[in-house]
Amino acid sequence: MDHTFGEAEFAARTARIQAAMAREGLAALLLTAEHDVRYVTGYLTRFWESPTRPWFVVLPASGKPIAVIPTIGEALMRTTWVDDIRTWPSPRPDDDGVSLLADTLAAVCGPDGALGVPMGPECTLRMPLRDFEAVRARLAPRRVRDATALLQGVQMVKSPAEIGRIAAMCEAAGRAFDRVPEIAAEGVPLSTVFRRFQIALLEEGADWVPYVAGGAGADGYADVISPATEEPLAHGDLLMLDTGAMRAGYFCDFDRNFAVCSASAAMRSGYHLLHDAVEAGFAAARPGAAAADVFEAMLRVVARAGDAGSVGRLGHGLGMRLTEPPSLTAADTTALAPGMVITLEPGLQLAPGRMMVHEENIVIEPAGPRYLTRRAPAELPVLEGRP
Amino acid sequence: MDHTFGEAEFAARTARIQAAMAREGLAALLLTAEHDVRYVTGYLTRFWESPTRPWFVVLPASGKPIAVIPTIGEALMRTTWVDDIRTWPSPRPDDDGVSLLADTLAAVCGPDGALGVPMGPECTLRMPLRDFEAVRARLAPRRVRDATALLQGVQMVKSPAEIGRIAAMCEAAGRAFDRVPEIAAEGVPLSTVFRRFQIALLEEGADWVPYVAGGAGADGYADVISPATEEPLAHGDLLMLDTGAMRAGYFCDFDRNFAVCSASAAMRSGYHLLHDAVEAGFAAARPGAAAADVFEAMLRVVARAGDAGSVGRLGHGLGMRLTEPPSLTAADTTALAPGMVITLEPGLQLAPGRMMVHEENIVIEPAGPRYLTRRAPAELPVLEGRP
Repeated sequence: MDHTFGEAEFAARTARIQAAMAREGLAALLLTAEHDVRYVTGYLTRFWESPTRPWFVVLPASGKPIAVIPTIGEALMRTTWVDDIRTWPSPRPDDDGVSLLADTLAAVCGPDGALGVPMGPECTLRMPLRDFEAVRARLAPRRVRDATALLQGVQMVKSPAEIGRIAAMCEAAGRAFDRVPEIAAEGVPLSTVFRRFQIALLEEGADWVPYVAGGAGADGYADVISPATEEPLAHGDLLMLDTGAMRAGYFCDFDRNFAVCSASAAMRSGYHLLHDAVEAGFAAARPGAAAADVFEAMLRVVARAGDAGSVGRLGHGLGMRLTEPPSLTAADTTALAPGMVITLEPGLQLAPGRMMVHEENIVIEPAGPRYLTRRAPAELPVLEGRP
Repeated sequence: MDHTFGEAEFAARTARIQAAMAREGLAALLLTAEHDVRYVTGYLTRFWESPTRPWFVVLPASGKPIAVIPTIGEALMRTTWVDDIRTWPSPRPDDDGVSLLADTLAAVCGPDGALGVPMGPECTLRMPLRDFEAVRARLAPRRVRDATALLQGVQMVKSPAEIGRIAAMCEAAGRAFDRVPEIAAEGVPLSTVFRRFQIALLEEGADWVPYVAGGAGADGYADVISPATEEPLAHGDLLMLDTGAMRAGYFCDFDRNFAVCSASAAMRSGYHLLHDAVEAGFAAARPGAAAADVFEAMLRVVARAGDAGSVGRLGHGLGMRLTEPPSLTAADTTALAPGMVITLEPGLQLAPGRMMVHEENIVIEPAGPRYLTRRAPAELPVLEGRP
């Protein structure tokens, strides 16, 4: 249950999707992924961590979504705005919802209505492929079409209520970052820093912490996705912590850098460059600009350092998922629109194979962008002594 | 990186899978899911939380796995035992690894070798369906076959090193459960209890906490998958906390029940019955017994309460995922074998729509089962006063 979203929020989301379905001539959508199911129903649970059971939502061309779900989820789904809830006792490997789903889809699609399924970039069909093929065969000769662009187009533009939740999580994570000097210092293993940082996030208001990453090293970090090692922080290290923490179903995604005891000239100038790159991205992130424009604005700044690294993009959408469309890459021509929430995430190489990255979260408003994160300090913070 | 697993562990896993591939006449496997990729490579990262990029591992009929992955993961993959690492700059929506993967698979399969893909129960193909269909078309007329049973058969039987990790996580979570009297009491909101319990799990040794659930109420809880409400615990409530926490890449999954201030006669007798049901399941969980036998042994005990509830199964496999095959259901005939780790999770109804569940984790050994969890106390613990 998204505790403080009223029915109007879900009715508005559903209406926007159904308007797009009408334009594309789709009679129904099949949703299987956590964020898609939650987007139209409000069904919020950590039980998706168990891969055993599939969960289905069928969105008709008009009216409320229909939930086709395992019995174990019925009580929770009854607390949402969904009225039509169809259940089966899962797991039942010989028919794990397949016939119930196929019957539902056949009735909603009618004899020749087309079914939309998200099957493109950044989408995973969260059900066994064999079962999907069985459902598809049962629906033939009805067409099954890709609904990726349709759904992502709607979901990229957040409602004020959604933006409020992302902002609240950004604020809580900002307070946790403020406490890094209490938890990280020379001699503390990186694994301990990660553990303490997660605790700080929970204490400051995260409901749970789906993502923490980071790195540390004398000339930057080797990558930004590795788990923590037992290596203690050393005098002169650059430390980066990055989190996607969640509150009321919405993520933040930003990082902060710290020098351990002492900051080298290379670190300080790299930090300034990344700070300037974020400013350039922010200035470019106006309604009507393309995602690629924001990418180019940041790239022009980090290119002054010679090598902008090879992470592949310099930011992305943010919301119910840690990363969402659009991508801030040279190829993404998505036009920014009011309500979009994106990260600005430039990076550069400090030394061969050693990088530095920086990340902030912003929302696009009619008059221009607004930071959801409290902007990182203009100078690289130095962690002094032992906490 | 699975820090303390040596290359021998991955070589042994790969050899077991390749022996099964030889029996089934498969030239290659395509792995896309986090646990499958990690199982053969040791590639451990929380970056899977980002749905943007697909990750592929191709396992040939002999030799080491081949990683076909986004450039952003190359540095981390280089720390594993994998030698052949092929990368592309993802995200690249018009060819997000599709041609690189198709070329790799075509070369490994040869002109007419069959490809295995996990596409059955409890499996998700973690790549866009449209991209999979493009790869499949590129491979035609080679056959694509379901490799679910093959992989699950190997993965269900854990190595001593894997069992050691699950046991370590169970011990850490046991210490966190010991601290529940410090964090939960009458008047404390359930959301605060959940937050504090996650902190305790981290403090006691979890690397991260992918799953916490629970519930509270006067006659039991309405379900076992809902997020925490702001409702304060009340005198006489039954409180249940359940966690799948992770350490070094392996899960625990068990719960504990507590009475708030006072335990009703119904709670105490329900607790005894569930305790007895676990004992019955434990006694039945001998090598050679079927998963269904363990289910029936527990069901016979909880059936004394009249209604065993409708959760659908009374336990499941456990390891790199919160829930894995087998399922303790009437229909699952999987023969238990030494090395399997399972949960025993009987439940019953205390009142209409209000349930009580209990869960322990065990490993099957040649001489019989062994608890990995420190067994819950024989009497329902009562939380006294305010902490």
